[in-house]
Amino acid sequence: MPNFRPILFIVSIVLLALAGTMLIPAAVDFAYGNPDAGVFLYSAAFTGACGGALALGTRCHLHGGLSLRQAFLLTPLTWTSTAAFAALPFQFGHFPELSLNYANAFFETMSGLTTTGSTVLVGLDRTTEGILLWRALLQWMGGIGIIGVAIAVLPALRVGGMQLFRTESSDRSQKVLPRAQQIAKAIAGVYAGLTAICGVCYWLAGMTPFEAVVHALTSLSSGGFSTSDSSIGHFESPVLHWLVTLFMLLGSLPFVLYVRTLTGQRDALWKDSQVRTYLAFLAAVILPLSIWLAATHGHGFHDALRLVAFNVVSVVTTTGYAYTDYSQWGNLAVGVFFGLTFIGGCTGSTAGGIKIFRFEVMVTVLRTHFLHLIYPRGVFPRQYGNRRLDDDVLGSVIVFFALFFTAYSVITIALMALGLDFITSASAAVTALANVGPGLGDIIGPAGTFSSLPDSAKWLLSLAMLLGRLELFTVLVLFMPQFWRG
Amino acid sequence: MPNFRPILFIVSIVLLALAGTMLIPAAVDFAYGNPDAGVFLYSAAFTGACGGALALGTRCHLHGGLSLRQAFLLTPLTWTSTAAFAALPFQFGHFPELSLNYANAFFETMSGLTTTGSTVLVGLDRTTEGILLWRALLQWMGGIGIIGVAIAVLPALRVGGMQLFRTESSDRSQKVLPRAQQIAKAIAGVYAGLTAICGVCYWLAGMTPFEAVVHALTSLSSGGFSTSDSSIGHFESPVLHWLVTLFMLLGSLPFVLYVRTLTGQRDALWKDSQVRTYLAFLAAVILPLSIWLAATHGHGFHDALRLVAFNVVSVVTTTGYAYTDYSQWGNLAVGVFFGLTFIGGCTGSTAGGIKIFRFEVMVTVLRTHFLHLIYPRGVFPRQYGNRRLDDDVLGSVIVFFALFFTAYSVITIALMALGLDFITSASAAVTALANVGPGLGDIIGPAGTFSSLPDSAKWLLSLAMLLGRLELFTVLVLFMPQFWRG
Repeated sequence: MPNFRPILFIVSIVLLALAGTMLIPAAVDFAYGNPDAGVFLYSAAFTGACGGALALGTRCHLHGGLSLRQAFLLTPLTWTSTAAFAALPFQFGHFPELSLNYANAFFETMSGLTTTGSTVLVGLDRTTEGILLWRALLQWMGGIGIIGVAIAVLPALRVGGMQLFRTESSDRSQKVLPRAQQIAKAIAGVYAGLTAICGVCYWLAGMTPFEAVVHALTSLSSGGFSTSDSSIGHFESPVLHWLVTLFMLLGSLPFVLYVRTLTGQRDALWKDSQVRTYLAFLAAVILPLSIWLAATHGHGFHDALRLVAFNVVSVVTTTGYAYTDYSQWGNLAVGVFFGLTFIGGCTGSTAGGIKIFRFEVMVTVLRTHFLHLIYPRGVFPRQYGNRRLDDDVLGSVIVFFALFFTAYSVITIALMALGLDFITSASAAVTALANVGPGLGDIIGPAGTFSSLPDSAKWLLSLAMLLGRLELFTVLVLFMPQFWRG
Repeated sequence: MPNFRPILFIVSIVLLALAGTMLIPAAVDFAYGNPDAGVFLYSAAFTGACGGALALGTRCHLHGGLSLRQAFLLTPLTWTSTAAFAALPFQFGHFPELSLNYANAFFETMSGLTTTGSTVLVGLDRTTEGILLWRALLQWMGGIGIIGVAIAVLPALRVGGMQLFRTESSDRSQKVLPRAQQIAKAIAGVYAGLTAICGVCYWLAGMTPFEAVVHALTSLSSGGFSTSDSSIGHFESPVLHWLVTLFMLLGSLPFVLYVRTLTGQRDALWKDSQVRTYLAFLAAVILPLSIWLAATHGHGFHDALRLVAFNVVSVVTTTGYAYTDYSQWGNLAVGVFFGLTFIGGCTGSTAGGIKIFRFEVMVTVLRTHFLHLIYPRGVFPRQYGNRRLDDDVLGSVIVFFALFFTAYSVITIALMALGLDFITSASAAVTALANVGPGLGDIIGPAGTFSSLPDSAKWLLSLAMLLGRLELFTVLVLFMPQFWRG
């Protein structure tokens, strides 16, 4: 049984920070004269009180660091307890067309903190600024949170092949910023800086300042919450569509590489194997699909390219902004977008999904396996970039795939058992696990919402979003009896 | 470039045997006075002539055995060329409601030879005996063919983890039948014997002798072709339903174990890890589903058990007989049967699919991986039964999963690109790859047929059936440029 005290102390600090963040929408609602200002204040007070009490009760020094088990417990516990409190404003806030029960409020919050972007809200265009900003802030915090977890926690836990990136910042010859804390600060700075630049660009391209802030927060975080039921479809400017596409893409690249680029290694992004594969993959999907759309649906090529690039980037970066309902393009588009939902962006970014480097590792495994079948006596080293892929990394990546598809199957069948139809279940399961946002079909497709799903399905999908966001292992390991023994 | 001569010589011998087999439906149609007797005779003559010419042109000694590349080439080439000729009676035969083009005829043949059981025929109840018997014979030959490939070819090629079973018959202490040829004969004897027993049982349970022969041929082979459009639903006897369930199950167990049981090792079946897991899995699916069906659909428990057992065994053994349209049981049933389509029976049987031992290997990999995450310094040997799983076997099993799901995704999206809807594409791809037979949805579900699909989809699904039947590697390796070099 691990010692819970230091874990709970860290959770209490996160809750105190959360309470502080709630003051931002409170202030905004106060400034706009909206009735929800009080809701945010009360939520902040309650969260702050609980966090404060917990902090007093568990106060301790963290100098010794955490044990392996404590580290495994910390991440899901932080995410879940943050979501539990962050849901309060949704439950008690005022909405034009509905009042949310806790299942809905928790779903919306988990969708925010995991940067998924699936929503149960309708009538966003008439919703108060505080709520819209709160949703965006949840995604922005979730985004920087997951970059931190991906860089600091997962590699240390040797989870999902992330140990490949363990030594990137410390053990290599080109040390740009030797200390972990400095790197964390630099990444947070880049994240905030890019968000600011993004907001200004959106504003210059025609959004109101408020819309620009919300969308900047949800673009860089690969979140996808918007200020309108029609999402980016609300905005008519082609320049804006390209800008959104660009900033979604920037949010899905490894943030460590931005820091390296800024600190002297100008070609850090371009030299990275994962980034190159990622961009090549996007081009290989976007170009033929644009030509096909232009040829079959009477769009000019430029329009088709803009539509396809926006939607493909939105799904692959796991942002999930909607612009057009691509399921209207026919069965080919439905199949392609369903497949794209699994892919995901680069690791060390805010994007979810299986992620590019894992596909690169699997392709290497397949290639060397086939070569070995043909030349049984040949020696074919398995490499990633310049590095040898050791059995530990390979095993982790393979187990990640196995877990992802197992979880996917179980969740799909469970959703069907709850009465959902095939395409809704199959697409809800993957859009939640990969933290994308919209599903397929009439109910949860790009033009729909998750509001009509039964509460049981919302709880299940909340779990799926958490599972996917924390790369499965970290949550699933808690279900092993051995974890809790001796 | 491998030397084609010995490969083509073996193909020519198979074609001569095929020509001989065509004389059986010819004789049956002649006896029944059906017009197709001539079609079978002409087809036999043409196939025999081509096979004979090829045999004369490529005659050689096979004492030296085949090289690795020749062995890889042989299996897909044999299956494809056999299908190409065996399709002739379908193209030129007389059907009550349709005449088949070559795409349809080839699809039906490949579905037979791969023991899939998907059909493009409607009006089976009014089709001539020769055609019905020909379909059944194709499945029966395909069934014994795949047992031979699974025992003799795949382990030697170290494909899909089958090397686990390489030494079963030769290198072990309990040698029951030391020589490969003797084992092959014993297995063929068991296969023929079980088929005969099956036929007699079906006849005693109420089928006509002809129906009993056809269904015996397609039960033991996990094929699933029937004599009626309503498949086993045509027969009302509950005893018969249980018998069909039993013989489908017997066809999906490792045939080597029957031989061992008969030659003294009485507990060979029961002691086998794969068989035990398989039966436990079936029970774990059938019992709760029966209780659920009885509780929700007003069946008595015995009826529910019979219905569920029949349909679950039909799908998991990859036979694909239809009895009730389980998709009418609601979304839960659709989800469960969709998932079951992937599973498959035991290796070394006539069943297709991913197969139980591969899931056992993956569970071992997952288990040891999680234990290793919790106890980084622990040593957790990976075992299958009493044997250590070496990296070669693990790698092959993992690559098999990767190939299966990659092929599955590509085929699904390709079918959608051809205009098919989501559930038809998603279920057609897996039912073909796993050699099951029926899909899901209104078109290709248990109550439908593949006849209305476009020809392009039929060619693609024919390839998918072949890919799945030959365990992917053997076909895909031919697409590697390195295979053809040096």
